[in-house]
Amino acid sequence: MVPDTLFMQTEADALCATARWCYARGWVPATSGNFSVRDRAAARMLISPSGLDKGLMATADMLETDLEGRAADPAKKPSAETALHTVIYRHRPDAYAILHVHTIWNTILSGRFTELGYVPLEGYELLKGLAGVNTHTHRERIPILENSQDYDGLAADLSAALRNFADAHGVLLSRHGLYTWGKSVAEARRHLEALEFLFEVEGRRLMGGIG
Amino acid sequence: MVPDTLFMQTEADALCATARWCYARGWVPATSGNFSVRDRAAARMLISPSGLDKGLMATADMLETDLEGRAADPAKKPSAETALHTVIYRHRPDAYAILHVHTIWNTILSGRFTELGYVPLEGYELLKGLAGVNTHTHRERIPILENSQDYDGLAADLSAALRNFADAHGVLLSRHGLYTWGKSVAEARRHLEALEFLFEVEGRRLMGGIG
Amino acid sequence: MVPDTLFMQTEADALCATARWCYARGWVPATSGNFSVRDRAAARMLISPSGLDKGLMATADMLETDLEGRAADPAKKPSAETALHTVIYRHRPDAYAILHVHTIWNTILSGRFTELGYVPLEGYELLKGLAGVNTHTHRERIPILENSQDYDGLAADLSAALRNFADAHGVLLSRHGLYTWGKSVAEARRHLEALEFLFEVEGRRLMGGIG
Amino acid sequence: MVPDTLFMQTEADALCATARWCYARGWVPATSGNFSVRDRAAARMLISPSGLDKGLMATADMLETDLEGRAADPAKKPSAETALHTVIYRHRPDAYAILHVHTIWNTILSGRFTELGYVPLEGYELLKGLAGVNTHTHRERIPILENSQDYDGLAADLSAALRNFADAHGVLLSRHGLYTWGKSVAEARRHLEALEFLFEVEGRRLMGGIG
Repeated sequence: MVPDTLFMQTEADALCATARWCYARGWVPATSGNFSVRDRAAARMLISPSGLDKGLMATADMLETDLEGRAADPAKKPSAETALHTVIYRHRPDAYAILHVHTIWNTILSGRFTELGYVPLEGYELLKGLAGVNTHTHRERIPILENSQDYDGLAADLSAALRNFADAHGVLLSRHGLYTWGKSVAEARRHLEALEFLFEVEGRRLMGGIG
Repeated sequence: MVPDTLFMQTEADALCATARWCYARGWVPATSGNFSVRDRAAARMLISPSGLDKGLMATADMLETDLEGRAADPAKKPSAETALHTVIYRHRPDAYAILHVHTIWNTILSGRFTELGYVPLEGYELLKGLAGVNTHTHRERIPILENSQDYDGLAADLSAALRNFADAHGVLLSRHGLYTWGKSVAEARRHLEALEFLFEVEGRRLMGGIG
Repeated sequence: MVPDTLFMQTEADALCATARWCYARGWVPATSGNFSVRDRAAARMLISPSGLDKGLMATADMLETDLEGRAADPAKKPSAETALHTVIYRHRPDAYAILHVHTIWNTILSGRFTELGYVPLEGYELLKGLAGVNTHTHRERIPILENSQDYDGLAADLSAALRNFADAHGVLLSRHGLYTWGKSVAEARRHLEALEFLFEVEGRRLMGGIG
Repeated sequence: MVPDTLFMQTEADALCATARWCYARGWVPATSGNFSVRDRAAARMLISPSGLDKGLMATADMLETDLEGRAADPAKKPSAETALHTVIYRHRPDAYAILHVHTIWNTILSGRFTELGYVPLEGYELLKGLAGVNTHTHRERIPILENSQDYDGLAADLSAALRNFADAHGVLLSRHGLYTWGKSVAEARRHLEALEFLFEVEGRRLMGGIG
């Protein structure tokens, strides 16, 4: 679609630039990942289509859906994980952009901590990259959902996780990937950069037996 | 050669772009690797020449051979591993593009699992990047051939592996590299991205003693 | 501001190019890091503003402060760590540029060696990348401060570290990042490249149990 | 200097492109590394100057010396390691280009194997990237010199290593870096790519306890 307001045009362009940047870093390989922005003026969002190579993602590729995930143009097929975006927007009313990526370190850590149920992150200055966090002593817990191909079940689990971890800035699906969000594409990307940095530090530290 | 149909021109250009992208990631160092596309309209393929720096690979560098690997222009020398491409096209009739790369992680894993005879990959969302795979519970086994400089022997081993692992989306040569393929260059590249991602995750996980 | 001398213009441009280069390498994720240049002709510096995405940092974004860190334009907000820059310029009179980055390896090593109080670096040829070092047998000790959100306390600790480690070419904040400096942006960047290389080598060596 | 033959112009340009490419990969940080090409028509070479940022190296920066390392223009200062280049050209009469880089993995491996006296490389297909090697069963041994700031002593040690390891395609200085060479810049770069790939594979394998 062609975004029909300046706000949506600007945010959709920023979202696509972020998607291509993620691809260049190897964070959305093999057409994985999905991305959306929510309108501030109407109950709708723009979301990446199913199966797109994110290295080539452009605004014209994005699909409009309502906040239940129903495509404005029924001939188009939004990402299979659209339902998860709608759940996040419902539980995080300040969120206007969502990024979902598959990275080496979020895949490893989400597997490593599946039983614990969350990845603990504490004591790092870069936690201050997360909105509302003012100190490295902050304790962030990123919940981990069991992965599933049952999107209704996943949506219910995601809903529960967002309630139970009301302060979390992201959610992991086990051996699958990270969802994070923000009040704008820029803030969502800042959260993504901060969380992936911390996952890599923690992953390398754990593997290396470094205290 | 100059590809003489629009299909072959388009696919050869995509193949060369993929080869240069692989080079930039360090996946075909030191003139290693080889790449081909098969015609849909005639019994022939285009394949990279022997010894080419893949960072510079362009469509005009590619050589035409028949499906036995005989060069259309006998003065040209196709890749030494052309015979392996012909075996893959014979056993995988849906394949129209083949990528062969030497990466850090496929080299390490193909050595680590030589005795087992295959690399097991299971439980990862990114398995869905492989054609026909709809769930992370899919169990992919990528067979490993002993490396050899006897290309006739290798071709026979490859033939056996493609029969014995009829669903495999790739084949490894031990401490050598990966072959993968697809119905198009885009699909072959999607398989490459998915498999290399999974090799890196598994390699790091195994090394780090992470469960 | 617009730098008003050729020297400041040139150095500010070089500083911003270095900041963007750091961002591209993942060394200042999530708007982290900060950067400054000091004037040779007047008691003032240019410093990055608070919260800027360093991948986009341009000379026009920089703020002028005096050497106590007071902004020339009180409506602008310099980096929260401006006080640390002023301490470094006071204790290192030859320093005219300061770089502060958050990298995977400086985060890991600064955590690993917090109790020892410094990261020891010895026996590497690349130590010669540090000003005044002529041999790989040089023993560099990079002091580590406990991280804190109390910038007055941090400034005092930094002051003490710069006195106690009078020859050090950088200072680490634990699980936070590295400060390094030089007589020019080029020299500061050379120090940054040398120290981060050595942190990565030492980090990987320690993790791998390689002697 | 301006190279005064087409051969030297072409090779010098290729050498500088290779130097910049090495810089972009992090292989010559902090002005480290040095690079030369030897003339085929006269007893002279072009070599990088001392202290240059290799990310910016251009043909006009290079200095002409004779094969004893004496600068044609005594006002210019060639790399401090020029003597080592002259030793290599003397012992390897087929070599017309030399690359010297400092990488994470050659630094780690050259430290790890100092006592053994060489890095053993065997069983990898990528060994065929080395001139004259036709099989992965080839056993390459890259000798390791103790590092030193006594360049006369280093030159003598290098001379001995090149005699004792007559088939070696490179030489390491312990915790310092790799020298490799070739009959052209392209061949030297192919050797560099092959050796660094193998160092990384071996380094990761050894660290990870993978058989």
